Amino acid sequence: MPTQMKASFLNKQSEVAVVMLPVPVLEADQVLVRVAAVGVCGSDVHYYQHGRIGPYVVNHPLILGHELSGRITAVGSAVDSARVGQRVAVEPQRPCRVCEQCKAGRYNLCPDIEFFATPPIDGAFCEYVAIQSDFAHSIPDSISDEAAALIEPLSVGIWACKRAGVALGSRVLIAGAGPIGVIVAQTAKAFGASTVYITDVSDDRRAFALGHGADVALDPRVDSVEGLEVDVFIDASGVAAAVQAGIKAVRPAGRVILVGMGNDTVELPVSWIQNREIWLSGVFRYANTWPLGIELVGSGKVDLDVLVTGRYGLEQAEEALNSGKLSGEMKAIVYPGR
Amino acid sequence: MPTQMKASFLNKQSEVAVVMLPVPVLEADQVLVRVAAVGVCGSDVHYYQHGRIGPYVVNHPLILGHELSGRITAVGSAVDSARVGQRVAVEPQRPCRVCEQCKAGRYNLCPDIEFFATPPIDGAFCEYVAIQSDFAHSIPDSISDEAAALIEPLSVGIWACKRAGVALGSRVLIAGAGPIGVIVAQTAKAFGASTVYITDVSDDRRAFALGHGADVALDPRVDSVEGLEVDVFIDASGVAAAVQAGIKAVRPAGRVILVGMGNDTVELPVSWIQNREIWLSGVFRYANTWPLGIELVGSGKVDLDVLVTGRYGLEQAEEALNSGKLSGEMKAIVYPGR
Amino acid sequence: MPTQMKASFLNKQSEVAVVMLPVPVLEADQVLVRVAAVGVCGSDVHYYQHGRIGPYVVNHPLILGHELSGRITAVGSAVDSARVGQRVAVEPQRPCRVCEQCKAGRYNLCPDIEFFATPPIDGAFCEYVAIQSDFAHSIPDSISDEAAALIEPLSVGIWACKRAGVALGSRVLIAGAGPIGVIVAQTAKAFGASTVYITDVSDDRRAFALGHGADVALDPRVDSVEGLEVDVFIDASGVAAAVQAGIKAVRPAGRVILVGMGNDTVELPVSWIQNREIWLSGVFRYANTWPLGIELVGSGKVDLDVLVTGRYGLEQAEEALNSGKLSGEMKAIVYPGR
Amino acid sequence: MPTQMKASFLNKQSEVAVVMLPVPVLEADQVLVRVAAVGVCGSDVHYYQHGRIGPYVVNHPLILGHELSGRITAVGSAVDSARVGQRVAVEPQRPCRVCEQCKAGRYNLCPDIEFFATPPIDGAFCEYVAIQSDFAHSIPDSISDEAAALIEPLSVGIWACKRAGVALGSRVLIAGAGPIGVIVAQTAKAFGASTVYITDVSDDRRAFALGHGADVALDPRVDSVEGLEVDVFIDASGVAAAVQAGIKAVRPAGRVILVGMGNDTVELPVSWIQNREIWLSGVFRYANTWPLGIELVGSGKVDLDVLVTGRYGLEQAEEALNSGKLSGEMKAIVYPGR
Repeated sequence: MPTQMKASFLNKQSEVAVVMLPVPVLEADQVLVRVAAVGVCGSDVHYYQHGRIGPYVVNHPLILGHELSGRITAVGSAVDSARVGQRVAVEPQRPCRVCEQCKAGRYNLCPDIEFFATPPIDGAFCEYVAIQSDFAHSIPDSISDEAAALIEPLSVGIWACKRAGVALGSRVLIAGAGPIGVIVAQTAKAFGASTVYITDVSDDRRAFALGHGADVALDPRVDSVEGLEVDVFIDASGVAAAVQAGIKAVRPAGRVILVGMGNDTVELPVSWIQNREIWLSGVFRYANTWPLGIELVGSGKVDLDVLVTGRYGLEQAEEALNSGKLSGEMKAIVYPGR
Repeated sequence: MPTQMKASFLNKQSEVAVVMLPVPVLEADQVLVRVAAVGVCGSDVHYYQHGRIGPYVVNHPLILGHELSGRITAVGSAVDSARVGQRVAVEPQRPCRVCEQCKAGRYNLCPDIEFFATPPIDGAFCEYVAIQSDFAHSIPDSISDEAAALIEPLSVGIWACKRAGVALGSRVLIAGAGPIGVIVAQTAKAFGASTVYITDVSDDRRAFALGHGADVALDPRVDSVEGLEVDVFIDASGVAAAVQAGIKAVRPAGRVILVGMGNDTVELPVSWIQNREIWLSGVFRYANTWPLGIELVGSGKVDLDVLVTGRYGLEQAEEALNSGKLSGEMKAIVYPGR
Repeated sequence: MPTQMKASFLNKQSEVAVVMLPVPVLEADQVLVRVAAVGVCGSDVHYYQHGRIGPYVVNHPLILGHELSGRITAVGSAVDSARVGQRVAVEPQRPCRVCEQCKAGRYNLCPDIEFFATPPIDGAFCEYVAIQSDFAHSIPDSISDEAAALIEPLSVGIWACKRAGVALGSRVLIAGAGPIGVIVAQTAKAFGASTVYITDVSDDRRAFALGHGADVALDPRVDSVEGLEVDVFIDASGVAAAVQAGIKAVRPAGRVILVGMGNDTVELPVSWIQNREIWLSGVFRYANTWPLGIELVGSGKVDLDVLVTGRYGLEQAEEALNSGKLSGEMKAIVYPGR
Repeated sequence: MPTQMKASFLNKQSEVAVVMLPVPVLEADQVLVRVAAVGVCGSDVHYYQHGRIGPYVVNHPLILGHELSGRITAVGSAVDSARVGQRVAVEPQRPCRVCEQCKAGRYNLCPDIEFFATPPIDGAFCEYVAIQSDFAHSIPDSISDEAAALIEPLSVGIWACKRAGVALGSRVLIAGAGPIGVIVAQTAKAFGASTVYITDVSDDRRAFALGHGADVALDPRVDSVEGLEVDVFIDASGVAAAVQAGIKAVRPAGRVILVGMGNDTVELPVSWIQNREIWLSGVFRYANTWPLGIELVGSGKVDLDVLVTGRYGLEQAEEALNSGKLSGEMKAIVYPGR
């Protein structure tokens, strides 16, 4: 077992560097995971470009990356040593487990939660990470390292569909056909949606989405969604105009879930929401989603491998963070161990 | 049985007149109610002052009033004649009963619903109204005519508390201490709320609310509600600033219900809603609330009589519509039969 | 339009005869359906064999059959005449629409409901039936007459899965691989079940179920289900031993839905139910299921045509009622119009 | 801080003795509670009389008692030392916090839970106990030691009412007017029940219940409950005949919660449950109930002190365990510190 490892740090806005640091020391209930694959998320890119997300500021060098898979190479004193060698998808968070929210089953809302790659907690652009054993979810060999890493954004889709009440026969509108929008589309179909509409201004993204979950793809500059009378609208764009239009596509007693991050405040059509008794909420990460995510990927109901469009070594982390500007780019993967 | 009756019409904005017209002819499933008391609602006043509410325009003379009680004086051919003589609280709406929303138990969202005093459907500022028998709810003698009429606004409070999930031990914030705010406060206590906070800029209204449902009354110009971490926020003000502040008073996984009618669009703190996974919705009238309303008034858990501050004959309907400008005014009652 | 029609009556236990009687006269909100296909249900067979089901006794000649499709040939005065000519799947019940249960969206629990082929209400082994317009559900041409008729038992499966909370990833155990068991299996898969176990003592039925919804088929005389720790157990057998065993297969906080009709009382493992906080209930027909049923059949998520194993004219209705004794028989269809 | 303490052990069936043993050593997240008051529960009595409850056998000396309050006298290394001196009501269980049930908010169903006074886990008939800090709930001075101890059985009532969906206006039937039945009655009223019926064969218990939560008390040997059409039936008797009768008192779509422990299997009216789509379940202890319990007792909505009918020192524990045979006995309290 090595004692030192390589990690890619964001030192500050737009400055990335690989340095050596000690391999994490395990607490009793943790496992050590040798990281195999890490997906690049929009939030990683935002930290890289802006040095902050809202109140979370990169004041100290930070390891980015929170979509990850790997293999257990060591276990803490309270963990069954039979876990060593298991391939795992990592749920990159650590709730306190004792607060009201945790004990009510909503550990994602724990006020003391620690989350990978959110200052000051380091992420996974490195060779090894430590994680509580129950947040390292075993995966079958049929799931690739890349797909296992992407169970993290899939969890966002699962959580959004659960909160939205997507069910057999639901008609669903999704705004934004980026990686999250496409994942939500696939997830909604797996939840039984009869028709999934997706909107995006990009021709490429609409075309991609049509083959991967969406039944109908609309260009919001041309097509209006008002009158669709969908059961559910899920915003994966963070664009105010898309949110406003999407709400007006929802039938009475339908639901709206806001996933995309945009401005802190948005002008919403509240009289529409009132007159139709629409429920509106958002998602803050997820809770208890990995078992279902593994089931969906393992059974082929959701295909995450198809999202991977770029592959990078740890030394190329900055290139991966910039890859979103490439035409047709969906999801970049960093391989810290290669 | 008379064949003609008096009715107070709103001919157009700011023009009210009493005229004679035929007593309604009953359909088979209807009952004829001799109107005893009618509460004046903010929407009646709005039609009087502006001649419209949003898309609903007073193009033809309209009978106002939708908060009413009375006594059954005749029944349609399919109704048990034993109902004649019963005192009733009237639920002033008529859903189609065959659409998806009706059959799902959400008849208030029926797209073809007819509602009293909403153009072109006449209301109850008149001597007799016809209503489907099951929407004329029998009341015990212990409930006054006035309280029976006010089971209509109480139903708004019940529906708001139900949708908000107010339950034993809930901490509830209400914005606005007008009639609806005070009714919501009383209702929330009946639902088991441990603490009810209410906000209003009026010293009188705060003082009144304190004695009638609210545990704590706050002046929003002085006191901030952020940090209250209530389970539920119910807006009964329609004021954007109150809505924005109220949302920030809600704990993670809490609920917001917008009752007050204000602008069609309001700037809302969506990132707060997302990060706390707060559910936000509104109420559009109510469904299946009268039985509980009658129970609450009959048992004394809610006191509606205390809200009555003005009493008017049918000829004084315009005076009643203007009474809201009086100091200390809460609820005006029109008595068409006197 | 003919004024007389043929109907097959159950005069009393084991006595069936075709007689002529007037075509039904429509009420204002009804449509007249020329019956195309009628499925034979176990309850039809039970009335034929025993002359009663529990408190429902065939004291007067009764038309059997409540699983039906057809074509609208006339409409009542309040129904859009554009409906004439539409192919429809008939929901064979008539709730009162005004009671507490109806208005709460649970019209199947209406105490005054009338249901086809339940004494004294006639069923569909006849050329024409009258039904409220909103209970005659339009179907696309892609759905066969037989499948449209079988949306009735499919509705039982949909209602059972809804009440059981079957969702994406659920593990489901079904007892009984008769027509209802197989329909429940297909429905559960459509609802997203990851694994469907089915039990039956018949080798043929187990084999059939495996190809049509079930992932695993077990012989209860050989295989124990205890320890499966399924999320949901749905009984479609009505056999006490199967119910008892099935409950012990359910994980903590799981659900049990009893569909099969057996003895009025059954000895249940209540301490198991208590210690695991399992929820147990049954189904009584269904409410609001046809739209989803049509969606499932039309989209191919459920295949009902495969269940049809016998075809009979109206004159052969008694033969159809006896066909269940044939080897491999699943579902007999009676064609009143042929 | 003493290092030795007195404890009352059940050595085996019907053999109780006080011995000295070491004060518990705290884990990092625990607090040490000097026990003030301990309620005697029916399960304590059952262990004393029979040496076992179902699969739980007293093979080794066991400290009984799991309804307790006290004062924190020391804290583990990870607990805020400001807690020392706090009066607390103890939630006498320890879930694993990492399994599926725990993380879903149902920690009472944790398969690895440890519960006070359930072999081999010791209880509270002793001077000091150790408990995880978040399960030692601070109480205000207005709550007595006895009432604080009895928040444990109150939690059973809260959990039962929550699972039963008792809400404002509910009509509730309770079978059994022992301590749990009376607590459920009070709790149901606090949840807003409009009418609480209770049944018991004991005249004394019916009379006591009438003054403490129940609106109507019935003698099951004389009065039938069928036809009450209650929303909720909660069994607190464990008697098969009471369970059977109670289910038949429930309206369509109502709920049944079995709290009382009786035989492992009971003959239930399943066709009644099916035809009315009644939901039936049980309770297994509780989760997240102490905050509400403290609120109810502190606000006076529930009165637990009135239940106390016997008071015993630790040396008299056996006498306390035998006190249930006394006329009029409701709840015995043991005071280990006196």
